[in-house]
Amino acid sequence: MNVHRLDKYAKSLIKVAAGRIKSSFTTDLLIETKSEANDLVTNIDKETEQFFIHHIKRDFPNHRILGEEGFGDDLHDLEGYIWILDPIDGTMNFIHQKKNFAISLGIYKDGIGVLGYIYNVMEDELISAAMDEGAYFNDVRIPAVKKANIEQSIIGINASWVVPNKHIEHEGMIKLLQKVRGTRSYGSAALEISYVVTGKLDAYMSMRLSPWDIAGGMVIAKEVGAIVTNLANEPINLLEQNTFIISKPGLHKELVTNYIRLKQ
Amino acid sequence: MNVHRLDKYAKSLIKVAAGRIKSSFTTDLLIETKSEANDLVTNIDKETEQFFIHHIKRDFPNHRILGEEGFGDDLHDLEGYIWILDPIDGTMNFIHQKKNFAISLGIYKDGIGVLGYIYNVMEDELISAAMDEGAYFNDVRIPAVKKANIEQSIIGINASWVVPNKHIEHEGMIKLLQKVRGTRSYGSAALEISYVVTGKLDAYMSMRLSPWDIAGGMVIAKEVGAIVTNLANEPINLLEQNTFIISKPGLHKELVTNYIRLKQ
Repeated sequence: MNVHRLDKYAKSLIKVAAGRIKSSFTTDLLIETKSEANDLVTNIDKETEQFFIHHIKRDFPNHRILGEEGFGDDLHDLEGYIWILDPIDGTMNFIHQKKNFAISLGIYKDGIGVLGYIYNVMEDELISAAMDEGAYFNDVRIPAVKKANIEQSIIGINASWVVPNKHIEHEGMIKLLQKVRGTRSYGSAALEISYVVTGKLDAYMSMRLSPWDIAGGMVIAKEVGAIVTNLANEPINLLEQNTFIISKPGLHKELVTNYIRLKQ
Repeated sequence: MNVHRLDKYAKSLIKVAAGRIKSSFTTDLLIETKSEANDLVTNIDKETEQFFIHHIKRDFPNHRILGEEGFGDDLHDLEGYIWILDPIDGTMNFIHQKKNFAISLGIYKDGIGVLGYIYNVMEDELISAAMDEGAYFNDVRIPAVKKANIEQSIIGINASWVVPNKHIEHEGMIKLLQKVRGTRSYGSAALEISYVVTGKLDAYMSMRLSPWDIAGGMVIAKEVGAIVTNLANEPINLLEQNTFIISKPGLHKELVTNYIRLKQ
């Protein structure tokens, strides 16, 4: 498998899928809720995933697909080529804002990230990376992220994690709020990851993300020197949900050591 | 004073100022802190305000100016024409992200909002309004905001206000977090206001905003039917700092009545 051929193919598929998503704004959205009231999915999420799967299965029949909407394969291992896809990351933004959502895609071979993409559809900003070949913002090389210090940092964190919750001791998060320069919350894990790898945020964390939220971003993170682990400072497992942190160097260890206390 | 002539003049000034801000990215920023460690100002904030003042004083010598950086007039009343300007709203984003900041401008006559502007510089999105003539997103008319309900709402609120703080009882904010569909935080009051008037957020609130953060947005809000008050449900006073809420109809009363308890 030639990685550059695969890269061109994947980028083309992402751009065509994005065009379909944009044109969907002229028709009515069908919105459903999934497991929780605020976990939303639309017909466009589903159709976009099916569009990817149709093409990947036709052109790379021995590749497998792990997708948010569940139309892909039922995976129990990471052998061979696997496309890990979120057709629309930030569905709530997609519905309410018609912007601030992304297509997130990682292509892994035997569990190793080969290609990664985060495409901000409405701003036409494609962040991409190939293993050992660096990361790009559209056609411009992204420099390595700089070392950050906590007092001058801006952290991506949702307000839900600084109030009493079942995942994390919120006292540590309050201490963190008082220490950092500021916090932001954009409502799309893939976009918040894209903000860290391009230096716009210094770190981003979440209590529960799925492989498709982060697989593309993890490949990009590695190429720019951003650190990714779960909140217990362990490697991410791409076959299950994880807690998650991505951080510039100089900040990661301090965050997981001094501010983050998981409840179990 | 012909309002359409004033409108064209103000828009032109905003666009030229934005061009100067963008070109500043090729030179070094000088960053200072103001009253608090995280209250930042740059040479570009100052130069942009001076650019506005130079032109306004030359072309409208009897107009007065209230600006964030303090180069304008020392105002004790709202008589006559007053330009209320934040040259860069979201200075922290300007410094860290090189995006997600806005020029915010309101032009008031005897305390009444005549013209309002919020310009997202990097996305080239100008939201503007003239009293009784509606609001526009670039050249496209913005429809009246729709009635919102709390369970399906997305609220702009910074995490600082849901943890113990000196301004507001945080228990009410926690109750609010548990009720709404989601929260966001973008780090620029003007941009968050622009998100409400274009329907991307259902409400936005803050514990302390200055007249220049909100004067432009208030003119726009009125034209699209969004409700603006302080958090005690009183009118905004443009000569001092205020607590602030902007909301779609159907949500404002419930928020200020059932969730917001100010500490003094």
